[in-house]
Amino acid sequence: MFKKKFIGICGSLRKNSRNMGLLRAAAEAMPEGASLEIADITNIPLYREDMTKPDSVEHLARQVREADGIVLAVAEYNYSYAPALKNALDWLSREKGELLAGKTCAMMGAAGGMGSSRAQYHLRQVCVYLDLRVLNKPEVFANAFSDAFAADGSASDSESGAQLRANVASLMQVLCARV
Amino acid sequence: MFKKKFIGICGSLRKNSRNMGLLRAAAEAMPEGASLEIADITNIPLYREDMTKPDSVEHLARQVREADGIVLAVAEYNYSYAPALKNALDWLSREKGELLAGKTCAMMGAAGGMGSSRAQYHLRQVCVYLDLRVLNKPEVFANAFSDAFAADGSASDSESGAQLRANVASLMQVLCARV
Amino acid sequence: MFKKKFIGICGSLRKNSRNMGLLRAAAEAMPEGASLEIADITNIPLYREDMTKPDSVEHLARQVREADGIVLAVAEYNYSYAPALKNALDWLSREKGELLAGKTCAMMGAAGGMGSSRAQYHLRQVCVYLDLRVLNKPEVFANAFSDAFAADGSASDSESGAQLRANVASLMQVLCARV
Amino acid sequence: MFKKKFIGICGSLRKNSRNMGLLRAAAEAMPEGASLEIADITNIPLYREDMTKPDSVEHLARQVREADGIVLAVAEYNYSYAPALKNALDWLSREKGELLAGKTCAMMGAAGGMGSSRAQYHLRQVCVYLDLRVLNKPEVFANAFSDAFAADGSASDSESGAQLRANVASLMQVLCARV
Repeated sequence: MFKKKFIGICGSLRKNSRNMGLLRAAAEAMPEGASLEIADITNIPLYREDMTKPDSVEHLARQVREADGIVLAVAEYNYSYAPALKNALDWLSREKGELLAGKTCAMMGAAGGMGSSRAQYHLRQVCVYLDLRVLNKPEVFANAFSDAFAADGSASDSESGAQLRANVASLMQVLCARV
Repeated sequence: MFKKKFIGICGSLRKNSRNMGLLRAAAEAMPEGASLEIADITNIPLYREDMTKPDSVEHLARQVREADGIVLAVAEYNYSYAPALKNALDWLSREKGELLAGKTCAMMGAAGGMGSSRAQYHLRQVCVYLDLRVLNKPEVFANAFSDAFAADGSASDSESGAQLRANVASLMQVLCARV
Repeated sequence: MFKKKFIGICGSLRKNSRNMGLLRAAAEAMPEGASLEIADITNIPLYREDMTKPDSVEHLARQVREADGIVLAVAEYNYSYAPALKNALDWLSREKGELLAGKTCAMMGAAGGMGSSRAQYHLRQVCVYLDLRVLNKPEVFANAFSDAFAADGSASDSESGAQLRANVASLMQVLCARV
Repeated sequence: MFKKKFIGICGSLRKNSRNMGLLRAAAEAMPEGASLEIADITNIPLYREDMTKPDSVEHLARQVREADGIVLAVAEYNYSYAPALKNALDWLSREKGELLAGKTCAMMGAAGGMGSSRAQYHLRQVCVYLDLRVLNKPEVFANAFSDAFAADGSASDSESGAQLRANVASLMQVLCARV
């Protein structure tokens, strides 16, 4: 039986990240026959053309190669995406065989006022070059400072936490239907 | 006599970076009474909210605090800015006293086909939040793969290299006139 | 005595437009010694290079020429600015003497969820080319579907309407201080 | 036999428009079994919520409803798309039955220096909301002021004109393969 595998990458590196919480919610919401693995990019250094490829990048590249699609949790700093996320994609873009090209991608994010929308639109432009096929809808713009999140960054047990889980689950269903 | 001091930050970390070459051209083109110091951001790690501030950030913050304005050399990867540059700005945005707010800023960049324009427009949005006052014109979009650049990343002695120097000099004159 | 004159342009053409309501709030909030005239662009046709310049454009150009700065009320349709507003700017960009270049500009807008932020960031890129000097802050992102607005599009007498007036007034103060 | 039908919409309204020339080149390049009809939007007025829907919009809506996909020729004014094109899409977005949602879309454009890239990236954001599925590649950025174009706006008989035709044909092949 074909099993769909996805890899999730989170832009925020901090402990208790709410964007990481979104990825956990996505992993739990995966429909039967599909699974989401969450990558660890904390050890990937800033890209440098004249640097030897680190093992952390090699590892991520293998995870992405084996995945049917990608889920991005887009943290926002200063009206654009967190550099750590884009940096991981920049490293992957140097891999042989156009690792990313043609893969289906779902995007979501948690941030202040505008729910990381500013960051996500910038990242969508990056995905044009990478030839990632980003779903248009549903868009998930979570308010990081609402009670939708618990202290450890997970979606909370409040009503807005449940709504958030439902939004993330809906995005995962569309993703799985497309791949 | 008032002397205008500027700090230049380059998005590309590699040796022989052409964006670093643009900053050197800018430093040489500074009008009398003004100077441009070029920052070294190679040791600034990816931002992490729960990390102790590294000395490299402390050093850059001091340079920026003492500067009357900022010059950004915007390398472009995958249709957006190099993460290293945005990462340095993200660190600076956490400094007390709104280090960046109200400072005048000039932007330029070297890249393939579109001369880093895609990256610069993304970074301009970041500057809205940081309240950096970015000059509208002249825009400097250098073709990184033309003979305007020598092997070490400097503007070359060719005709297009001379034209590039003139463009950079023109941007620095507008910058100095504004500060 | 020098009196500062501003011209306001609204992206939405409909009766009871809330973006027009923002301009009325701005006109009322002008500090002493400053005034805001609101342009009527309803008769400006879609730009066409081979069309004779209409009187409506001639009239707007005169208003802009006499103004010390510009206030844009940015309606948002489908994740970007209302064409009517950009169209007026496109016509003005063809005027002799670079009518717009160097003028100070304030931007605000009312729309659904994200308060026209998506539209405003697109328009800020347009302003780079036009060399309009757009204020970074404060940004005014009004929720068009809240009780901040009355039925005729004006800021309402509710608490959120009062808050909205205060935000617009604050933007006008920054604008007048800059010109 | 299933025949694929596409509708092309051009942002520039002027006679001899080079963006219209791109659409003619696309129509000629359609693979067997596919055809491209070019819409006439010159009579579509600026959108106004309280205006009765004009016949010109009704006509375009019918063309789009019957089409399997959409081709957009994105003229650029002042660093963003021509209002006439976005205005036509805004009208269509008000049609019942989400006329545009889920349709495949190809984008191309001719303009100065950057080949309308700035306009196309803005329009891609609009397409996220409209749920148009825009091809990532190939991107067609034509230099409107090169000899790739003849005086009537068509792709010329020069070498760069032939190259342009080939690029447009390549985009149409990818489009037809996706629908």
